[in-house]
Amino acid sequence: MSTGPGLLFVVSGPSGAGKDTLVEALRERRATLRYSVSATTRAPRGDERNGEHYFFVSPEEFELLRDGGRLLEWRQYNGNLYGTPCDYVEESLTEGYDVVMKPEVNGALAVKAAYPDAVLIFLVPDRFSHLRERLLARRTETNEEIARRLEIAQQEMKFIRSFDYIVVNEQDHPEGAVRDLEAILQAERFRIHRYPDDSIRRVESS
Amino acid sequence: MSTGPGLLFVVSGPSGAGKDTLVEALRERRATLRYSVSATTRAPRGDERNGEHYFFVSPEEFELLRDGGRLLEWRQYNGNLYGTPCDYVEESLTEGYDVVMKPEVNGALAVKAAYPDAVLIFLVPDRFSHLRERLLARRTETNEEIARRLEIAQQEMKFIRSFDYIVVNEQDHPEGAVRDLEAILQAERFRIHRYPDDSIRRVESS
Repeated sequence: MSTGPGLLFVVSGPSGAGKDTLVEALRERRATLRYSVSATTRAPRGDERNGEHYFFVSPEEFELLRDGGRLLEWRQYNGNLYGTPCDYVEESLTEGYDVVMKPEVNGALAVKAAYPDAVLIFLVPDRFSHLRERLLARRTETNEEIARRLEIAQQEMKFIRSFDYIVVNEQDHPEGAVRDLEAILQAERFRIHRYPDDSIRRVESS
Repeated sequence: MSTGPGLLFVVSGPSGAGKDTLVEALRERRATLRYSVSATTRAPRGDERNGEHYFFVSPEEFELLRDGGRLLEWRQYNGNLYGTPCDYVEESLTEGYDVVMKPEVNGALAVKAAYPDAVLIFLVPDRFSHLRERLLARRTETNEEIARRLEIAQQEMKFIRSFDYIVVNEQDHPEGAVRDLEAILQAERFRIHRYPDDSIRRVESS
């Protein structure tokens, strides 16, 4: 009784909630999980590598992808363009791999519109006040950018009811959230609506 | 951000699918999970103990419970009465424990009617033909009873769409189904509808 092709998991939430670290830990634990690499026009930070953390593209290349309908979702943020190329996602799902992506909240909603079957997980820090600490700690944004991100985060919380799950990332126990995410990835496979009628008939008659 | 009181998990499926062994393994792995002991008028089998596997009661005691509205669901099967006393379930949920029960399929549907929030898991053997082997192997039923159970099992499969999850119990890898059940128990806690509005507002403002 196969559950069919792979499942699409969208981990989103306010910037600074800890998405990057958790998704990386998740990928290390599940060999059948592929990461959907985003395209962006922003410059690489720290040791970010092209094709691994992002596809770093020029504004012209980005527009070519977008206008050709090859982006699942896209958006402008802090003057840079971000988007999710759909080819890799769709190929992986068809081959039976699960795919995880971590777009911002608006992007997650766009993905759900394109793939109603996608599983949307909202990641929140255990206290909202920790967001500021995390953003400061990573030292990649100016104070103005941080203030702006916090304001956006407050707005994003309003879309929480469009998600399927809420997972709390506890500052002092990040391994807890990794375990919770892994349970969701595992459990979703068995939800009744993922079994097409013919797979159930096969069980009945086997 | 608390998800509130405990969750109720109902593991059901055809007789012989392996519910007893799996639920027992699950209880060993989760200290916060309580087992809802059923009442029955049938005689104990093998080393079954009163108050642990079942409450073994007389037909008169059973009727007293049932007519007093103290059974969540009840039914007659092979000439015996079975039912789920509700007091222990409700006390445990209120105290924040999760509760697992393993009624037959009709009972599971009755529990869902009483507790729409209950999580219903349908357990099936990897092959329907294994049901007969399992029933024969446990040597507790006559051939006529086994034939009757198999017929009932075929009927029960028709209610599979009323359940929330399907878990396949592979004959040769029962530990897989235990892990799957555990993932469901863990993941259900984070489903968006389990977060009341005020808990989400607390996150926003913390």
